[in-house]
Amino acid sequence: MLGKTRWVIPEGYIPDAGSHADNPALRSHEAACILNAGDQDAQLTLTIYFTDREPAGPYRVEVPARRTLHLRFDDLYDPEPIPRKTDYASVIESTQPVIIQHTRLDARTGELALLSTLAYGED
Amino acid sequence: MLGKTRWVIPEGYIPDAGSHADNPALRSHEAACILNAGDQDAQLTLTIYFTDREPAGPYRVEVPARRTLHLRFDDLYDPEPIPRKTDYASVIESTQPVIIQHTRLDARTGELALLSTLAYGED
Amino acid sequence: MLGKTRWVIPEGYIPDAGSHADNPALRSHEAACILNAGDQDAQLTLTIYFTDREPAGPYRVEVPARRTLHLRFDDLYDPEPIPRKTDYASVIESTQPVIIQHTRLDARTGELALLSTLAYGED
Amino acid sequence: MLGKTRWVIPEGYIPDAGSHADNPALRSHEAACILNAGDQDAQLTLTIYFTDREPAGPYRVEVPARRTLHLRFDDLYDPEPIPRKTDYASVIESTQPVIIQHTRLDARTGELALLSTLAYGED
Repeated sequence: MLGKTRWVIPEGYIPDAGSHADNPALRSHEAACILNAGDQDAQLTLTIYFTDREPAGPYRVEVPARRTLHLRFDDLYDPEPIPRKTDYASVIESTQPVIIQHTRLDARTGELALLSTLAYGED
Repeated sequence: MLGKTRWVIPEGYIPDAGSHADNPALRSHEAACILNAGDQDAQLTLTIYFTDREPAGPYRVEVPARRTLHLRFDDLYDPEPIPRKTDYASVIESTQPVIIQHTRLDARTGELALLSTLAYGED
Repeated sequence: MLGKTRWVIPEGYIPDAGSHADNPALRSHEAACILNAGDQDAQLTLTIYFTDREPAGPYRVEVPARRTLHLRFDDLYDPEPIPRKTDYASVIESTQPVIIQHTRLDARTGELALLSTLAYGED
Repeated sequence: MLGKTRWVIPEGYIPDAGSHADNPALRSHEAACILNAGDQDAQLTLTIYFTDREPAGPYRVEVPARRTLHLRFDDLYDPEPIPRKTDYASVIESTQPVIIQHTRLDARTGELALLSTLAYGED
């Protein structure tokens, strides 16, 4: 079983959509790229932490067996959307071992900037 | 023996080739940079995971003893090429301990954007 | 209890403020993004290391229970500001387990460049 | 004692110096950012691995107690310079525990692109 069941992304910030706002692939966004390499579907629960209020969530997503999900934070609406231009952090818990990488695309000034890192995993 | 035998890169996405499509070094691409610092040749097997279909592979590559291989995902053709503009993730298994780092160059808008992270390793 | 109590960011460098110097969100900066997912407030102590002088600090910050703090290094003034255009590194110790990610925004040439990585954690 | 004594950076590539070739801070380069937070000077040995030849080295550097060294790979000359536009990887061994982060600045197309990741550490 490859992976861990708890993951943390301390750096969260969805910039202004930027100059490519009409293009989902090119407008500013953040993603948690999740791999479930196992043979059991994984049920994931996200909690979003902020600077000055209690956490939001739980947000629930499924990553089926042998599938990857590149989860965009600007696609999360239930129980509430994640505001742009706001510092946040996320904890993701899974019923099955998974592996998670964090990526941001920042298109505020026209050209693209990218960052990515493996998230912090624990069991 | 430095390294681990199983590695995961959850974030995979090969953007449009972009404005430098004729230049292999500057067109958009992703790479798994692999170091085999040991004295035995390493046989590696890649499996590529997708959002909505069964995994592709195995892809097979060798990294000789005391060598590095910067493996470009757009150079993988057997058993099938990895489509551009498609979310994927990869698991790499090796007969010898290796160390793997993931890098993307995104040239879609003309200027370059880069991301990189150490992959997730386990034995 | 999710996280670790000691973290290291070896790469520190605050570039020139750049072409967006009047906009705090867009001028060049570095941040340590810290999540305290626990139920106890965390007291953190930063020590800043340099190339050719003794370390500066301690700098003290608090991250309350269930909160994230995206700590900008250009907001640290006590006991002394961190100079721009100077190589440094940081060690962050916490009374409670936390998770830390390092991010830099470089706006020197007009467009943005970003880098990020999980910091190095130990107990 | 914070850190580990063996570190690996699998992804090495020094791009063309680019449009800021006269400015050491802005021309394309790679660095291994090393922190020695301990009270003993650390003696480090670098070995550089290539795709199609035997490794180069050892390169030797010292990181004094309580100091950081942002070591640029384009400043390594002894026993031989590291060629630009060539895939390489590096292993760094230290007499004392240290922590290492890898950064590249790519200025080939005029604007800057950055990547960074914690290196892979083992004892």
